Amino acid sequence: MLIARVVGTVVSTIKDDKLTGRKILIVREATTENEVVGKPIAAVDTVDAGIGDLVLIAQGSSARLTQQTKETPTDAVIMAIIDELAVEGKITFKK
Amino acid sequence: MLIARVVGTVVSTIKDDKLTGRKILIVREATTENEVVGKPIAAVDTVDAGIGDLVLIAQGSSARLTQQTKETPTDAVIMAIIDELAVEGKITFKK
Amino acid sequence: MLIARVVGTVVSTIKDDKLTGRKILIVREATTENEVVGKPIAAVDTVDAGIGDLVLIAQGSSARLTQQTKETPTDAVIMAIIDELAVEGKITFKK
Amino acid sequence: MLIARVVGTVVSTIKDDKLTGRKILIVREATTENEVVGKPIAAVDTVDAGIGDLVLIAQGSSARLTQQTKETPTDAVIMAIIDELAVEGKITFKK
Amino acid sequence: MLIARVVGTVVSTIKDDKLTGRKILIVREATTENEVVGKPIAAVDTVDAGIGDLVLIAQGSSARLTQQTKETPTDAVIMAIIDELAVEGKITFKK
Repeated sequence: MLIARVVGTVVSTIKDDKLTGRKILIVREATTENEVVGKPIAAVDTVDAGIGDLVLIAQGSSARLTQQTKETPTDAVIMAIIDELAVEGKITFKK
Repeated sequence: MLIARVVGTVVSTIKDDKLTGRKILIVREATTENEVVGKPIAAVDTVDAGIGDLVLIAQGSSARLTQQTKETPTDAVIMAIIDELAVEGKITFKK
Repeated sequence: MLIARVVGTVVSTIKDDKLTGRKILIVREATTENEVVGKPIAAVDTVDAGIGDLVLIAQGSSARLTQQTKETPTDAVIMAIIDELAVEGKITFKK
Repeated sequence: MLIARVVGTVVSTIKDDKLTGRKILIVREATTENEVVGKPIAAVDTVDAGIGDLVLIAQGSSARLTQQTKETPTDAVIMAIIDELAVEGKITFKK
Repeated sequence: MLIARVVGTVVSTIKDDKLTGRKILIVREATTENEVVGKPIAAVDTVDAGIGDLVLIAQGSSARLTQQTKETPTDAVIMAIIDELAVEGKITFKK
Protein backbone atom coordinates (compact mmCIF):
# COMPACT_ATOMS: atom_id res chain seq x y z
CA MET A 1 0.00 0.00 0.00
CA LEU A 2 1.04 3.58 -0.53
CA ILE A 3 2.09 5.56 2.53
CA ALA A 4 0.43 8.94 1.94
CA ARG A 5 -0.53 12.14 3.66
CA VAL A 6 -4.03 13.59 3.42
CA VAL A 7 -3.67 17.11 2.03
CA GLY A 8 -7.08 18.17 0.76
CA THR A 9 -10.66 17.56 -0.26
CA VAL A 10 -12.62 17.09 -3.49
CA VAL A 11 -16.13 18.43 -4.03
CA SER A 12 -18.05 16.83 -6.90
CA THR A 13 -21.77 17.03 -7.62
CA ILE A 14 -21.91 15.22 -10.95
CA LYS A 15 -20.48 11.77 -10.33
CA ASP A 16 -21.25 8.09 -10.54
CA ASP A 17 -24.22 7.16 -8.34
CA LYS A 18 -22.22 4.73 -6.27
CA LEU A 19 -19.99 7.57 -5.10
CA THR A 20 -22.92 9.46 -3.60
CA GLY A 21 -22.25 10.15 0.06
CA ARG A 22 -18.60 9.11 -0.15
CA LYS A 23 -15.92 11.47 1.13
CA ILE A 24 -13.16 11.94 -1.43
CA LEU A 25 -9.83 13.24 -0.18
CA ILE A 26 -6.66 14.38 -1.89
CA VAL A 27 -3.56 12.50 -0.76
CA ARG A 28 0.10 12.64 -1.69
CA GLU A 29 2.60 9.82 -1.33
CA ALA A 30 4.87 10.45 1.66
CA THR A 31 8.20 9.18 2.94
CA THR A 32 8.47 7.29 6.21
CA GLU A 33 9.53 10.66 7.69
CA ASN A 34 6.16 12.15 6.65
CA GLU A 35 7.48 14.32 3.85
CA VAL A 36 5.16 14.46 0.86
CA VAL A 37 6.85 13.44 -2.37
CA GLY A 38 4.16 12.24 -4.75
CA LYS A 39 1.66 13.97 -6.98
CA PRO A 40 -1.85 14.53 -5.58
CA ILE A 41 -4.33 11.74 -6.21
CA ALA A 42 -7.93 11.35 -5.05
CA ALA A 43 -9.00 8.51 -2.77
CA VAL A 44 -12.26 7.50 -1.10
CA ASP A 45 -11.96 7.79 2.68
CA THR A 46 -13.33 4.87 4.69
CA VAL A 47 -11.68 5.53 8.06
CA ASP A 48 -12.66 9.15 8.73
CA ALA A 49 -9.19 10.51 8.06
CA GLY A 50 -8.40 14.21 8.43
CA ILE A 51 -6.07 16.70 6.78
CA GLY A 52 -2.50 15.99 7.86
CA ASP A 53 -3.09 12.33 8.72
CA LEU A 54 -0.61 9.81 7.41
CA VAL A 55 -2.60 6.95 5.90
CA LEU A 56 -2.38 3.78 3.86
CA ILE A 57 -3.88 3.71 0.37
CA ALA A 58 -4.97 0.53 -1.39
CA GLN A 59 -5.08 0.91 -5.15
CA GLY A 60 -6.57 -0.98 -8.06
CA SER A 61 -9.33 -3.53 -7.56
CA SER A 62 -8.41 -3.76 -3.87
CA ALA A 63 -9.83 -0.26 -3.48
CA ARG A 64 -13.27 -1.88 -3.85
CA LEU A 65 -12.76 -4.37 -1.02
CA THR A 66 -14.03 -2.16 1.79
CA GLN A 67 -17.67 -2.14 2.90
CA GLN A 68 -18.14 1.44 1.65
CA THR A 69 -16.52 1.03 -1.76
CA LYS A 70 -17.94 -2.30 -2.89
CA GLU A 71 -18.80 -2.22 -6.61
CA THR A 72 -17.74 1.42 -6.75
CA PRO A 73 -15.78 2.86 -9.70
CA THR A 74 -12.85 3.96 -7.58
CA ASP A 75 -9.24 2.82 -7.80
CA ALA A 76 -7.92 4.26 -4.54
CA VAL A 77 -9.18 3.96 -0.98
CA ILE A 78 -7.90 5.14 2.40
CA MET A 79 -8.21 2.01 4.56
CA ALA A 80 -5.91 2.70 7.51
CA ILE A 81 -4.66 5.65 9.57
CA ILE A 82 -0.99 5.28 10.49
CA ASP A 83 -0.12 5.66 14.19
CA GLU A 84 3.55 4.94 13.96
CA LEU A 85 6.23 4.03 11.43
CA ALA A 86 9.56 2.47 12.34
CA VAL A 87 12.46 2.00 9.94
CA GLU A 88 15.45 -0.13 10.92
CA GLY A 89 14.25 -0.07 14.53
CA LYS A 90 14.04 3.73 14.71
CA ILE A 91 10.64 5.44 14.98
CA THR A 92 10.39 7.84 12.04
CA PHE A 93 6.77 8.92 12.49
CA LYS A 94 4.41 9.05 15.46
CA LYS A 95 0.93 10.51 15.32
CA MET B 1 -8.29 8.41 -8.69
CA LEU B 2 -6.37 10.60 -11.06
CA ILE B 3 -7.20 14.31 -11.07
CA ALA B 4 -7.22 15.15 -14.78
CA ARG B 5 -8.30 17.79 -17.26
CA VAL B 6 -10.30 16.93 -20.35
CA VAL B 7 -8.33 18.21 -23.33
CA GLY B 8 -9.67 16.47 -26.41
CA THR B 9 -11.67 13.82 -28.23
CA VAL B 10 -11.04 10.51 -29.96
CA VAL B 11 -12.87 9.36 -33.08
CA SER B 12 -12.71 5.64 -33.79
CA THR B 13 -14.83 3.61 -36.19
CA ILE B 14 -13.15 0.23 -35.93
CA LYS B 15 -13.32 -0.74 -32.28
CA ASP B 16 -14.57 -3.39 -29.90
CA ASP B 17 -18.38 -3.74 -30.10
CA LYS B 18 -18.87 -2.89 -26.45
CA LEU B 19 -17.40 0.57 -27.08
CA THR B 20 -20.07 1.41 -29.67
CA GLY B 21 -21.86 4.59 -28.67
CA ARG B 22 -19.37 5.42 -25.95
CA LYS B 23 -17.75 8.88 -25.90
CA ILE B 24 -13.97 8.63 -25.59
CA LEU B 25 -12.14 11.72 -24.38
CA ILE B 26 -8.48 12.63 -24.08
CA VAL B 27 -7.43 13.65 -20.58
CA ARG B 28 -4.19 14.73 -18.98
CA GLU B 29 -3.31 14.43 -15.31
CA ALA B 30 -3.52 17.83 -13.62
CA THR B 31 -2.30 19.42 -10.42
CA THR B 32 -4.71 20.66 -7.76
CA GLU B 33 -4.16 24.10 -9.33
CA ASN B 34 -5.53 22.78 -12.64
CA GLU B 35 -2.23 22.75 -14.51
CA VAL B 36 -1.87 19.77 -16.83
CA VAL B 37 1.24 17.72 -16.13
CA GLY B 38 0.64 14.21 -17.44
CA LYS B 39 0.73 12.61 -20.84
CA PRO B 40 -2.56 12.34 -22.76
CA ILE B 41 -4.56 9.17 -22.15
CA ALA B 42 -7.97 8.15 -23.44
CA ALA B 43 -10.90 7.55 -21.08
CA VAL B 44 -14.57 6.65 -21.54
CA ASP B 45 -16.80 9.51 -20.41
CA THR B 46 -19.79 8.55 -18.25
CA VAL B 47 -20.68 11.95 -16.78
CA ASP B 48 -21.00 14.10 -19.91
CA ALA B 49 -17.76 15.99 -19.30
CA GLY B 50 -16.61 18.76 -21.62
CA ILE B 51 -13.28 20.13 -22.82
CA GLY B 52 -11.61 22.02 -19.98
CA ASP B 53 -13.45 20.20 -17.18
CA LEU B 54 -11.39 18.93 -14.28
CA VAL B 55 -12.47 15.34 -13.63
CA LEU B 56 -11.69 12.19 -11.69
CA ILE B 57 -10.45 9.13 -13.57
CA ALA B 58 -10.80 5.57 -12.25
CA GLN B 59 -8.28 3.21 -13.82
CA GLY B 60 -7.84 -0.53 -14.08
CA SER B 61 -10.72 -2.93 -13.43
CA SER B 62 -12.57 -0.14 -11.59
CA ALA B 63 -13.05 1.54 -14.95
CA ARG B 64 -15.61 -1.16 -15.67
CA LEU B 65 -17.68 -0.49 -12.58
CA THR B 66 -19.97 2.15 -14.08
CA GLN B 67 -23.30 1.31 -15.72
CA GLN B 68 -21.98 2.37 -19.16
CA THR B 69 -18.65 0.51 -19.04
CA LYS B 70 -19.68 -2.84 -17.57
CA GLU B 71 -17.81 -5.69 -19.31
CA THR B 72 -16.12 -3.18 -21.61
CA PRO B 73 -12.44 -3.47 -22.58
CA THR B 74 -11.50 -0.08 -21.17
CA ASP B 75 -9.04 0.69 -18.40
CA ALA B 76 -9.93 4.33 -17.77
CA VAL B 77 -13.26 6.02 -17.08
CA ILE B 78 -14.32 9.55 -16.22
CA MET B 79 -16.70 9.05 -13.28
CA ALA B 80 -16.87 12.47 -11.63
CA ILE B 81 -16.67 16.15 -12.57
CA ILE B 82 -14.75 18.17 -10.00
CA ASP B 83 -16.50 21.31 -8.64
CA GLU B 84 -13.90 22.34 -6.15
CA LEU B 85 -10.52 21.28 -4.79
CA ALA B 86 -9.11 22.44 -1.48
CA VAL B 87 -5.55 21.82 -0.30
CA GLU B 88 -4.55 22.56 3.30
CA GLY B 89 -7.79 24.52 3.75
CA LYS B 90 -7.20 26.77 0.73
CA ILE B 91 -9.40 26.47 -2.35
CA THR B 92 -7.09 25.76 -5.29
CA PHE B 93 -9.73 25.12 -7.95
CA LYS B 94 -13.33 26.16 -8.38
CA LYS B 95 -15.39 25.37 -11.46
CA MET C 1 -6.48 3.78 -22.52
CA LEU C 2 -3.04 4.30 -23.93
CA ILE C 3 -2.78 6.12 -27.25
CA ALA C 4 -0.14 4.09 -29.10
CA ARG C 5 1.32 3.49 -32.53
CA VAL C 6 1.76 -0.01 -33.94
CA VAL C 7 5.44 -0.41 -34.81
CA GLY C 8 6.11 -4.12 -35.17
CA THR C 9 5.29 -7.78 -34.78
CA VAL C 10 6.12 -10.63 -32.40
CA VAL C 11 6.63 -14.22 -33.50
CA SER C 12 6.36 -16.82 -30.75
CA THR C 13 5.98 -20.58 -31.09
CA ILE C 14 6.24 -21.64 -27.45
CA LYS C 15 3.47 -19.81 -25.64
CA ASP C 16 0.40 -20.29 -23.50
CA ASP C 17 -2.26 -22.32 -25.35
CA LYS C 18 -4.84 -19.57 -25.15
CA LEU C 19 -2.60 -17.31 -27.22
CA THR C 20 -2.60 -19.76 -30.14
CA GLY C 21 -3.81 -18.00 -33.28
CA ARG C 22 -3.64 -14.56 -31.71
CA LYS C 23 -1.72 -11.79 -33.50
CA ILE C 24 0.72 -10.06 -31.15
CA LEU C 25 1.93 -6.62 -32.17
CA ILE C 26 4.55 -4.25 -30.79
CA VAL C 27 3.21 -0.83 -29.90
CA ARG C 28 4.72 2.32 -28.46
CA GLU C 29 2.85 5.02 -26.57
CA ALA C 30 2.33 8.08 -28.80
CA THR C 31 1.45 11.73 -28.33
CA THR C 32 -1.75 13.18 -29.76
CA GLU C 33 0.47 14.38 -32.64
CA ASN C 34 1.40 10.76 -33.42
CA GLU C 35 4.96 10.93 -32.19
CA VAL C 36 6.09 7.78 -30.42
CA VAL C 37 7.38 8.43 -26.93
CA GLY C 38 7.02 5.21 -24.95
CA LYS C 39 8.96 1.99 -24.74
CA PRO C 40 7.83 -0.91 -26.92
CA ILE C 41 5.27 -3.25 -25.36
CA ALA C 42 3.45 -6.22 -26.84
CA ALA C 43 -0.34 -6.27 -27.22
CA VAL C 44 -2.84 -8.73 -28.65
CA ASP C 45 -4.54 -7.27 -31.73
CA THR C 46 -8.33 -7.68 -31.91
CA VAL C 47 -9.16 -5.09 -34.59
CA ASP C 48 -6.81 -6.10 -37.42
CA ALA C 49 -4.48 -3.14 -36.93
CA GLY C 50 -1.49 -2.58 -39.20
CA ILE C 51 2.01 -1.12 -38.82
CA GLY C 52 1.73 2.66 -38.48
CA ASP C 53 -1.84 2.68 -37.16
CA LEU C 54 -2.58 4.80 -34.14
CA VAL C 55 -4.60 2.66 -31.74
CA LEU C 56 -6.06 2.47 -28.24
CA ILE C 57 -4.63 -0.06 -25.81
CA ALA C 58 -6.55 -1.40 -22.80
CA GLN C 59 -4.28 -2.74 -20.11
CA GLY C 60 -4.64 -4.91 -17.05
CA SER C 61 -7.67 -7.15 -16.55
CA SER C 62 -9.57 -5.08 -19.12
CA ALA C 63 -7.30 -6.59 -21.77
CA ARG C 64 -9.27 -9.81 -21.28
CA LEU C 65 -12.65 -8.23 -21.95
CA THR C 66 -12.68 -8.71 -25.72
CA GLN C 67 -14.16 -11.77 -27.39
CA GLN C 68 -10.68 -12.89 -28.57
CA THR C 69 -8.81 -12.45 -25.31
CA LYS C 70 -11.29 -13.88 -22.80
CA GLU C 71 -9.46 -15.90 -20.11
CA THR C 72 -6.15 -15.23 -21.89
CA PRO C 73 -2.95 -14.44 -19.96
CA THR C 74 -2.44 -11.09 -21.63
CA ASP C 75 -2.36 -7.65 -20.02
CA ALA C 76 -2.58 -5.48 -23.14
CA VAL C 77 -5.02 -5.50 -26.04
CA ILE C 78 -5.54 -3.31 -29.09
CA MET C 79 -9.29 -2.67 -29.04
CA ALA C 80 -9.73 0.40 -31.27
CA ILE C 81 -8.12 2.00 -34.32
CA ILE C 82 -7.99 5.78 -34.03
CA ASP C 83 -9.41 7.77 -36.97
CA GLU C 84 -8.98 11.22 -35.56
CA LEU C 85 -7.71 13.01 -32.47
CA ALA C 86 -8.64 16.57 -31.56
CA VAL C 87 -7.03 18.57 -28.77
CA GLU C 88 -8.55 21.89 -27.66
CA GLY C 89 -10.69 21.90 -30.79
CA LYS C 90 -7.75 21.46 -33.18
CA ILE C 91 -7.35 18.22 -35.11
CA THR C 92 -3.91 16.83 -34.25
CA PHE C 93 -4.19 13.47 -36.02
CA LYS C 94 -6.22 12.19 -38.94
CA LYS C 95 -5.81 8.74 -40.43
CA MET D 1 6.91 -9.83 -8.41
CA LEU D 2 8.94 -7.07 -6.86
CA ILE D 3 12.24 -8.03 -5.24
CA ALA D 4 12.23 -5.96 -2.06
CA ARG D 5 13.92 -5.63 1.31
CA VAL D 6 11.94 -5.38 4.53
CA VAL D 7 12.99 -2.15 6.23
CA GLY D 8 10.33 -1.32 8.81
CA THR D 9 6.96 -1.69 10.45
CA VAL D 10 3.60 0.08 10.41
CA VAL D 11 1.38 0.49 13.47
CA SER D 12 -2.25 1.33 12.76
CA THR D 13 -5.21 1.16 15.12
CA ILE D 14 -7.93 2.63 12.94
CA LYS D 15 -8.09 0.46 9.85
CA ASP D 16 -10.38 -1.71 7.78
CA ASP D 17 -11.72 -4.64 9.84
CA LYS D 18 -10.23 -7.23 7.51
CA LEU D 19 -6.75 -5.95 8.33
CA THR D 20 -7.20 -6.68 12.05
CA GLY D 21 -4.41 -8.96 13.23
CA ARG D 22 -2.40 -8.57 10.04
CA LYS D 23 1.28 -7.56 10.26
CA ILE D 24 2.04 -4.67 7.93
CA LEU D 25 5.68 -4.12 6.99
CA ILE D 26 7.51 -1.40 5.12
CA VAL D 27 9.50 -2.67 2.14
CA ARG D 28 11.66 -1.04 -0.48
CA GLU D 29 12.39 -2.41 -3.93
CA ALA D 30 15.92 -3.85 -4.07
CA THR D 31 18.42 -4.83 -6.72
CA THR D 32 19.56 -8.43 -7.14
CA GLU D 33 22.61 -7.36 -5.08
CA ASN D 34 20.31 -6.44 -2.19
CA GLU D 35 20.69 -2.68 -2.49
CA VAL D 36 17.47 -0.80 -1.81
CA VAL D 37 16.47 1.49 -4.64
CA GLY D 38 12.72 2.04 -4.43
CA LYS D 39 10.49 4.21 -2.30
CA PRO D 40 9.00 2.66 0.85
CA ILE D 41 5.65 0.94 0.41
CA ALA D 42 3.54 -1.02 2.91
CA ALA D 43 2.77 -4.71 2.42
CA VAL D 44 0.91 -7.34 4.43
CA ASP D 45 3.31 -10.02 5.63
CA THR D 46 2.12 -13.62 5.21
CA VAL D 47 5.44 -15.47 5.63
CA ASP D 48 6.70 -14.07 8.95
CA ALA D 49 9.42 -11.97 7.33
CA GLY D 50 11.83 -9.90 9.45
CA ILE D 51 13.68 -6.62 9.05
CA GLY D 52 16.50 -7.07 6.55
CA ASP D 53 14.94 -10.02 4.74
CA LEU D 54 14.87 -9.93 0.97
CA VAL D 55 11.35 -10.90 -0.12
CA LEU D 56 8.99 -11.13 -3.07
CA ILE D 57 6.00 -8.80 -3.22
CA ALA D 58 2.84 -9.56 -5.21
CA GLN D 59 0.90 -6.43 -6.06
CA GLY D 60 -2.59 -5.62 -7.30
CA SER D 61 -5.42 -8.14 -7.03
CA SER D 62 -2.85 -10.94 -6.63
CA ALA D 63 -2.11 -9.51 -3.19
CA ARG D 64 -5.47 -10.94 -2.13
CA LEU D 65 -4.67 -14.49 -3.25
CA THR D 66 -3.07 -15.68 -0.02
CA GLN D 67 -5.05 -17.34 2.77
CA GLN D 68 -4.49 -14.37 5.11
CA THR D 69 -5.36 -11.59 2.67
CA LYS D 70 -8.47 -12.99 0.98
CA GLU D 71 -11.08 -10.25 0.44
CA THR D 72 -8.78 -7.76 2.16
CA PRO D 73 -8.36 -4.18 0.89
CA THR D 74 -4.62 -4.51 0.37
CA ASP D 75 -2.66 -4.20 -2.87
CA ALA D 76 0.68 -5.59 -1.74
CA VAL D 77 1.60 -8.81 0.03
CA ILE D 78 4.87 -10.44 1.04
CA MET D 79 4.43 -14.03 -0.16
CA ALA D 80 8.00 -15.40 -0.28
CA ILE D 81 11.29 -14.97 1.53
CA ILE D 82 14.25 -15.08 -0.85
CA ASP D 83 17.06 -17.53 0.02
CA GLU D 84 19.24 -16.94 -3.00
CA LEU D 85 19.37 -14.91 -6.19
CA ALA D 86 21.55 -15.79 -9.17
CA VAL D 87 22.09 -13.54 -12.19
CA GLU D 88 23.81 -14.88 -15.29
CA GLY D 89 24.94 -17.93 -13.31
CA LYS D 90 26.59 -15.88 -10.54
CA ILE D 91 25.07 -15.84 -7.05
CA THR D 92 24.36 -12.20 -6.19
CA PHE D 93 22.49 -12.74 -2.92
CA LYS D 94 22.48 -15.50 -0.31
CA LYS D 95 20.57 -15.32 2.95
CA MET E 1 2.91 -7.51 -22.35
CA LEU E 2 6.41 -6.62 -21.32
CA ILE E 3 9.23 -7.71 -23.66
CA ALA E 4 11.87 -8.97 -21.23
CA ARG E 5 15.05 -11.00 -21.04
CA VAL E 6 15.50 -13.82 -18.55
CA VAL E 7 18.61 -13.00 -16.52
CA GLY E 8 18.49 -15.11 -13.38
CA THR E 9 16.81 -17.35 -10.85
CA VAL E 10 15.18 -17.04 -7.45
CA VAL E 11 15.45 -19.68 -4.72
CA SER E 12 12.84 -19.46 -1.97
CA THR E 13 11.94 -22.06 0.64
CA ILE E 14 9.47 -20.11 2.74
CA LYS E 15 6.71 -19.03 0.39
CA ASP E 16 2.99 -19.23 -0.21
CA ASP E 17 1.86 -22.86 -0.65
CA LYS E 18 0.50 -22.25 -4.14
CA LEU E 19 4.00 -21.35 -5.33
CA THR E 20 5.39 -24.76 -4.34
CA GLY E 21 6.99 -26.39 -7.37
CA ARG E 22 6.85 -23.21 -9.44
CA LYS E 23 10.05 -21.96 -11.13
CA ILE E 24 10.61 -18.27 -10.41
CA LEU E 25 12.94 -16.41 -12.76
CA ILE E 26 14.43 -12.93 -12.73
CA VAL E 27 13.67 -10.91 -15.85
CA ARG E 28 14.51 -7.43 -17.03
CA GLU E 29 12.54 -5.39 -19.54
CA ALA E 30 14.34 -5.33 -22.89
CA THR E 31 14.25 -3.27 -26.07
CA THR E 32 13.23 -4.81 -29.38
CA GLU E 33 17.00 -5.08 -30.03
CA ASN E 34 17.33 -7.32 -26.95
CA GLU E 35 19.12 -4.80 -24.76
CA VAL E 36 18.03 -4.94 -21.14
CA VAL E 37 16.79 -1.62 -19.83
CA GLY E 38 14.48 -2.31 -16.91
CA LYS E 39 14.99 -3.20 -13.27
CA PRO E 40 14.96 -6.90 -12.33
CA ILE E 41 11.57 -8.32 -11.41
CA ALA E 42 10.57 -11.89 -10.55
CA ALA E 43 8.12 -13.85 -12.69
CA VAL E 44 6.72 -17.38 -12.59
CA ASP E 45 7.88 -19.35 -15.61
CA THR E 46 5.20 -21.41 -17.40
CA VAL E 47 6.98 -22.07 -20.72
CA ASP E 48 10.31 -23.52 -19.55
CA ALA E 49 12.32 -20.44 -20.44
CA GLY E 50 16.08 -20.32 -19.98
CA ILE E 51 18.65 -17.66 -19.10
CA GLY E 52 19.10 -15.34 -22.09
CA ASP E 53 15.69 -16.02 -23.61
CA LEU E 54 13.63 -13.05 -24.71
CA VAL E 55 10.11 -13.58 -23.38
CA LEU E 56 6.71 -11.96 -22.91
CA ILE E 57 5.53 -11.16 -19.39
CA ALA E 58 1.87 -10.77 -18.45
CA GLN E 59 1.40 -8.71 -15.31
CA GLY E 60 -1.39 -8.06 -12.85
CA SER E 61 -4.39 -10.38 -12.60
CA SER E 62 -3.56 -11.76 -16.06
CA ALA E 63 -0.54 -13.42 -14.50
CA ARG E 64 -3.00 -15.85 -12.89
CA LEU E 65 -4.61 -16.88 -16.18
CA THR E 66 -2.23 -19.73 -17.02
CA GLN E 67 -2.88 -23.32 -15.94
CA GLN E 68 0.13 -23.26 -13.57
CA THR E 69 -0.60 -19.94 -11.87
CA LYS E 70 -4.36 -20.16 -11.30
CA GLU E 71 -5.30 -18.72 -7.89
CA THR E 72 -1.61 -18.07 -7.18
CA PRO E 73 -0.42 -14.88 -5.44
CA THR E 74 1.82 -13.82 -8.30
CA ASP E 75 1.59 -10.68 -10.42
CA ALA E 76 4.00 -11.61 -13.22
CA VAL E 77 4.17 -14.68 -15.45
CA ILE E 78 6.32 -15.68 -18.40
CA MET E 79 3.75 -16.95 -20.90
CA ALA E 80 5.62 -16.86 -24.25
CA ILE E 81 9.17 -17.27 -25.58
CA ILE E 82 9.92 -14.81 -28.37
CA ASP E 83 11.30 -16.27 -31.61
CA GLU E 84 11.47 -13.09 -33.62
CA LEU E 85 10.73 -9.39 -33.34
CA ALA E 86 10.29 -7.09 -36.32
CA VAL E 87 10.03 -3.31 -36.12
CA GLU E 88 8.97 -1.28 -39.16
CA GLY E 89 9.51 -4.36 -41.33
CA LYS E 90 13.09 -4.94 -40.15
CA ILE E 91 13.92 -7.98 -38.02
CA THR E 92 15.48 -6.68 -34.81
CA PHE E 93 15.70 -9.96 -32.91
CA LYS E 94 15.89 -13.60 -33.93
CA LYS E 95 16.37 -16.45 -31.51
